[in-house]
Formats: sequence, structure tokens, C-alpha cells
Amino acid sequence: MKRNAKVSTAVIRRLPRYYRHLSELQEDGVVRISSSGLGKSMGLTASQIRQDLFCFGGFGQQGYGYKVDSLKEEIGEILGISRGHTLVVLGTGNLGRAIIQNFRFSSNGFRLLAAFDVNPDMVGTQVAGVPVYHTDEMEAFVSSRQVDVGLLTVPIAAAQQMGDRLVRAGVKGIWNFTNYELTCSQPGVVVESVHFSDSLLTLSYLISQQEVLEKTQEEHP
Amino acid sequence: MKRNAKVSTAVIRRLPRYYRHLSELQEDGVVRISSSGLGKSMGLTASQIRQDLFCFGGFGQQGYGYKVDSLKEEIGEILGISRGHTLVVLGTGNLGRAIIQNFRFSSNGFRLLAAFDVNPDMVGTQVAGVPVYHTDEMEAFVSSRQVDVGLLTVPIAAAQQMGDRLVRAGVKGIWNFTNYELTCSQPGVVVESVHFSDSLLTLSYLISQQEVLEKTQEEHP
Repeated sequence: MKRNAKVSTAVIRRLPRYYRHLSELQEDGVVRISSSGLGKSMGLTASQIRQDLFCFGGFGQQGYGYKVDSLKEEIGEILGISRGHTLVVLGTGNLGRAIIQNFRFSSNGFRLLAAFDVNPDMVGTQVAGVPVYHTDEMEAFVSSRQVDVGLLTVPIAAAQQMGDRLVRAGVKGIWNFTNYELTCSQPGVVVESVHFSDSLLTLSYLISQQEVLEKTQEEHP
Repeated sequence: MKRNAKVSTAVIRRLPRYYRHLSELQEDGVVRISSSGLGKSMGLTASQIRQDLFCFGGFGQQGYGYKVDSLKEEIGEILGISRGHTLVVLGTGNLGRAIIQNFRFSSNGFRLLAAFDVNPDMVGTQVAGVPVYHTDEMEAFVSSRQVDVGLLTVPIAAAQQMGDRLVRAGVKGIWNFTNYELTCSQPGVVVESVHFSDSLLTLSYLISQQEVLEKTQEEHP
């Protein structure tokens, strides 16, 4: 696929969803799918699908649709899945351990190399086969192994400081689970945050709207 | 605030961020803030801030800005934080336990009432003071207590089935951590998913773009 230089954030945000859906279709043995079929399973219109994929120079054939495996591969390529990115985890509390044990890093093209913590009960142990070192060793590890991404699950009070240390050590991106809005002044370093509370508050908003709607319908049936 | 009937998804998605930033400002003792100040801390322009808040009928005063506490309260009201929503957790594996132990449900206006699991080692125990019951008791609990939201952290193979059971039991929303794209045909029931992999793949895309850019600069300095 050729890529347009300017792709909107909304399209970028949808690419991982395409990748996920195409993986599921592939697992289900689907070989070809029409844009309307793909749209239906993703809650998008056929025209949105065609527009999105057109941004990346990809297009199905009229009356033929998309080949699931090659479209998945092309989107995976755009997402950088085959680039062999590496990652370390900072913080091995409950959330850190849950992610290390359950998240399929390799399906997303990442190799998890190590975890770091200051807790003496954790340092020197392994979590799901991943070695846990003391946080003091993080800088040396990250720079010698040219680690791409630091996953941050430290307590919120340590978030900015540890983020700064990761950036100085040379990571290209921070995957931030601390619920703290990290600031990063280093050009070229990307921060991607997973804010659980933003997601729950969006849900809260949507069910509140629904409650108001249902109340109105009860009062004015 | 008066609310416009049609608010774009993008604005809705930003509201929790406003709430989070205003909470941080409040904790830092900030009383008033200009739209440009608020924008700066959020990576938005002053004009975007004014447009967003205008959607909900809120506006600061020229040369005065926004009162942090009342703006926070108004946005919290829109998000339904004061509505006393309730929640149960389905699945007490590592991720479920990590969320129960660490996530501040009450700060987001939710009361966590119970957790459910089929694992005999978990049933009858408590996680951070939250009782764990057998999943067979979920329907009776949810309907008698009129639980609003079910948080889903069950294995992916059980995700759709447990989602369907929650909907039949009467929840208004599902907070989905299973990495499975739940389908919900019940009108009025909202599914909000936290897909870790979508977030990591977005990060992967962004650092890959950065790598390409830097390579190009090295070749054509």
C-alpha cells in the first residue's frame, strides 16, 4: 500500500480495530470480505471502510471485496507490527503483573524484554518468565538494548519522574497506564495513555443520557 | 449548563479528560483558569476549548476565564458522576483483581458492589473488601440490586456469553476488558471497550512513522 502523508487521527485510531477484526475473520476461516460485510462487523458503513483504506492506498475490487489475509498483512505493515519493536515494563504491581501475564505482546509485534521495580520482594524474580530488575538498572538496560517502548505502571506520584528517565534513556515511546497525564518535551517521543477512568466516564455519560431519554419517554409516552 | 442535543463523539470523548484535568488543577489549588491555560495543559487550542464547552452551554467570561471548581462540577454532572451508578465485576483473574484493588471507582461516581467468578478458589473470598460470589448468582444479584454496569474481565471465550447474560439480567452498560468485540443487540445497552492492543498498535504506528522520518532525515540531511 502507498500511504498518504496526512492521515487523520480518527483513521489511525481505527487501524488497530481493522487489524483486530481481520485477525478474527482470518481465525474464523474467512478468505474474502466485502466492504459492507467488514463494515457490518465493525459498526461502520461500507463507504467509511472504503474511504479509510483508500487513505493508505488500499482498495478492494468491485464485486470481489478484500482478501482478508493480505489486507490484514498490509495493515499490520502500516502499524509497524513486523518492525520487531521491543518493550520493558516499569512497575510490577497488580496491574503490571496482570499485563505481563496476560497481554499478548507478540501478537502485536512487540518483544517484552524485562521488567523493573524498586520493591525488594520483586527484584530478582520472574513474572511469566520475564526477569524483574531493580529500577536503578533501567537506564543501562534500555540504552544498551535500544529498547523502543517503556510501559509505565508505577504509582502516580512517580509517573512523571519515571517517564522522564525513560525518555533520557532513549525510548521512542511510552505506554502510560498511570492515569497521570505525562508531559514529554522531547521531540520524536510519543506518549500513548490508557486512561481507565476516561473510558468509565464515557460509559457513565452514555448510560446517563439513556436514563434521561427513558425517563422522558415514561413521562411523555 | 444547557446541553445541545447533538454532541459529537469526539467532544464526548474529551469530556472525561476535561474532568481529569480540572480535578488535577483543583488539587493543585488553581481557582481560575483561562481557556488558553486549560488548552495548554491539555494540548488543545483555546478556541477548541471554547467550542467544546460551548456544546454544553458553558462559557467562561472574557478576561476572567473558568472557575475550576464549578466547571469541574458541571462537567461531572454531565458525565453522570452524581447519579450514584453501581457496578459489578465479572472475572477475578489478575486483571480483574488489579482493577478492583487499584481503580478508584468512587472518584468516578461508581459504587462497586460485588464480583463474580466460577473459580472455587475465589468464590466466597473478598478482594479489597469486595465479596466474590459464584457467577450463577449474578443474575439474581444484578436484577435485585438494579446494577447499572457489568465490568467484564472473563476469558475471551466466555466474553460474548457473559455479556449476553449481563444484558438479560438488566444492566445498562458493559465495561469490556476482554479484548473481544462484544455485539449487543439490546437497544439502550451501551458497550464501552478498553482494548489494550488498539492502544499499543497506535503507539507502534506512531513510533514507526517517527523511525521512517528519522531514516529519511539521515539519508537526506
